[in-house]
Amino acid sequence: MTWTDLLPSWNDGATKQSIIDFVLRVSTAGSSEYVPVNERIAVFDNDGTLWCEMPLPVQAYFVCDRIKALAPQHPDWQRTEPFKSVLAGDFRTAMATGVKGLAELGMTTHTGMTTDEFADIVRNWLVTARHPRFGYPFTEMIYHPMLELLGLLRSRNFTTFIVSGGGAEFMRVFAEEVYGVPPHQVIGSTVKTHFELRNNQPVLVKDALLDFFDDKAGKPVNINKYIGRRPIACFGNSDGDREMLIWSTAGRSDKRPSFGLLVHHTDAQREFAYDRERVLSGQLDKALNDARHYGWVVADMKKDWTTVFPTATRSAQA
Amino acid sequence: MTWTDLLPSWNDGATKQSIIDFVLRVSTAGSSEYVPVNERIAVFDNDGTLWCEMPLPVQAYFVCDRIKALAPQHPDWQRTEPFKSVLAGDFRTAMATGVKGLAELGMTTHTGMTTDEFADIVRNWLVTARHPRFGYPFTEMIYHPMLELLGLLRSRNFTTFIVSGGGAEFMRVFAEEVYGVPPHQVIGSTVKTHFELRNNQPVLVKDALLDFFDDKAGKPVNINKYIGRRPIACFGNSDGDREMLIWSTAGRSDKRPSFGLLVHHTDAQREFAYDRERVLSGQLDKALNDARHYGWVVADMKKDWTTVFPTATRSAQA
Repeated sequence: MTWTDLLPSWNDGATKQSIIDFVLRVSTAGSSEYVPVNERIAVFDNDGTLWCEMPLPVQAYFVCDRIKALAPQHPDWQRTEPFKSVLAGDFRTAMATGVKGLAELGMTTHTGMTTDEFADIVRNWLVTARHPRFGYPFTEMIYHPMLELLGLLRSRNFTTFIVSGGGAEFMRVFAEEVYGVPPHQVIGSTVKTHFELRNNQPVLVKDALLDFFDDKAGKPVNINKYIGRRPIACFGNSDGDREMLIWSTAGRSDKRPSFGLLVHHTDAQREFAYDRERVLSGQLDKALNDARHYGWVVADMKKDWTTVFPTATRSAQA
Repeated sequence: MTWTDLLPSWNDGATKQSIIDFVLRVSTAGSSEYVPVNERIAVFDNDGTLWCEMPLPVQAYFVCDRIKALAPQHPDWQRTEPFKSVLAGDFRTAMATGVKGLAELGMTTHTGMTTDEFADIVRNWLVTARHPRFGYPFTEMIYHPMLELLGLLRSRNFTTFIVSGGGAEFMRVFAEEVYGVPPHQVIGSTVKTHFELRNNQPVLVKDALLDFFDDKAGKPVNINKYIGRRPIACFGNSDGDREMLIWSTAGRSDKRPSFGLLVHHTDAQREFAYDRERVLSGQLDKALNDARHYGWVVADMKKDWTTVFPTATRSAQA
């Protein structure tokens, strides 16, 4: 086996070579840049880095479907924003209600139940929900080349974490099965919960209070809080990942080698093409400017990936 | 090898047998109570469960020593509580200033520096600090039988976590070396931090704001937040561990087998003897009443442990 066999869904070239060079350098005994196993921490953004976030982030579809499911119990929603626009299928107008409206949608659909009840709701939703353009289940709208990369890192004894602006309890329902990342390695945004005994049985109840929004400068804060160690590899795709990329790759007092990578969405045919323009999530502007300064690799989806989604791969092979 | 060889510092008897029975039952393929590897989560309190918390919790000694070290820069502390009593070596009077005074001591010694700077302060302190009665470094005031138990669980593919009221960033300095528990499996109380660039280098700064107090009903909340899965084994020693013991062992909708254990401090000669009386930390009253109802095992330090501290073990063998 040669090094080019390690990531078969990545086309040979500078991007693939930089990834494999780094992984082998830090994990080969005797290498001058060898990093002990317990310090081999890799962090991945989720939306746009491990799975598709266009035309809307997946969790927005969950919110809309939940609002529709709950609407019969709330007749007033037909007349009240942001619910009215969501029920009319117009999420962008609902978005225009701003932070307050979005928080209301989020809290209405993510709180007021136990943690177990919420996980069941998400699990059931994922069975039937489909991407509006591709028609795949959302758990198949994941990037096959990134799955390979997760596998390569784990095969070299990296511990792989997700650090996402998405809800931790939403992602934990599928992350272990889909990405091989167990719940305690899934870090995301959280609401407050409280412990109580109901009929003498312990439950945790999700409350309509934001605990932490895990985006931008919040990402290194949560990396420190949950992981307690600086990652040596960081993978993102948007300005929301800028601070965790800086934290992973710049000014390390421990002098460890490090690696940063941005997934650049350049493939309108196989997925979507977007970067600097303002979008609901995933805007890649400042971080793209910073890539050269900090030495982050920019992966060009169209050029660097032989395939995008595993379902497409399976169909093509069938 | 027979089962009694698995935990050599535990005396043969009902306590040891119950631990080994549980561990083998859930981890032996074909057992009717077999639990898949990814669900084998065990959580341990730290103060009084993994290391000594008497006559004061270790972190209180750190606070006192830091106040003394910082005092020359704060001449007013000689006249102001709670600093005045701490400088006079009277921590109990300082405690009497209540939550506000304690928070002031905690924030003065744990915030206002970067996370890296704090870790260095703790690391250096641990080198010279000694327990007032036994004279050992605090990292040798750990319970040898509990180290064996951590090892047994890991040998059966459990993932072991610490869930403590103590500071997460304090414990993470030594937990990997001393207990074999990596930073991302150390959960504790936290202060807020923020990200900033200083001279173009990223740092995280510890702010004088409580983020979360990881005790009592906060423990199951943090278990859900950090681990995202219900533990099947839980080890504690005080009323502060009651809720996480209930959460781990009672009313599980997944019907998994579970195990709860309380370390009962009954050995005034080799360690300390305390339970129902009110103490600075470690009061064991309600949880002791609940043990029978929930089926938690109560480990009697004097009867169940052949040895307490590893240093004592080494001296005896020398």
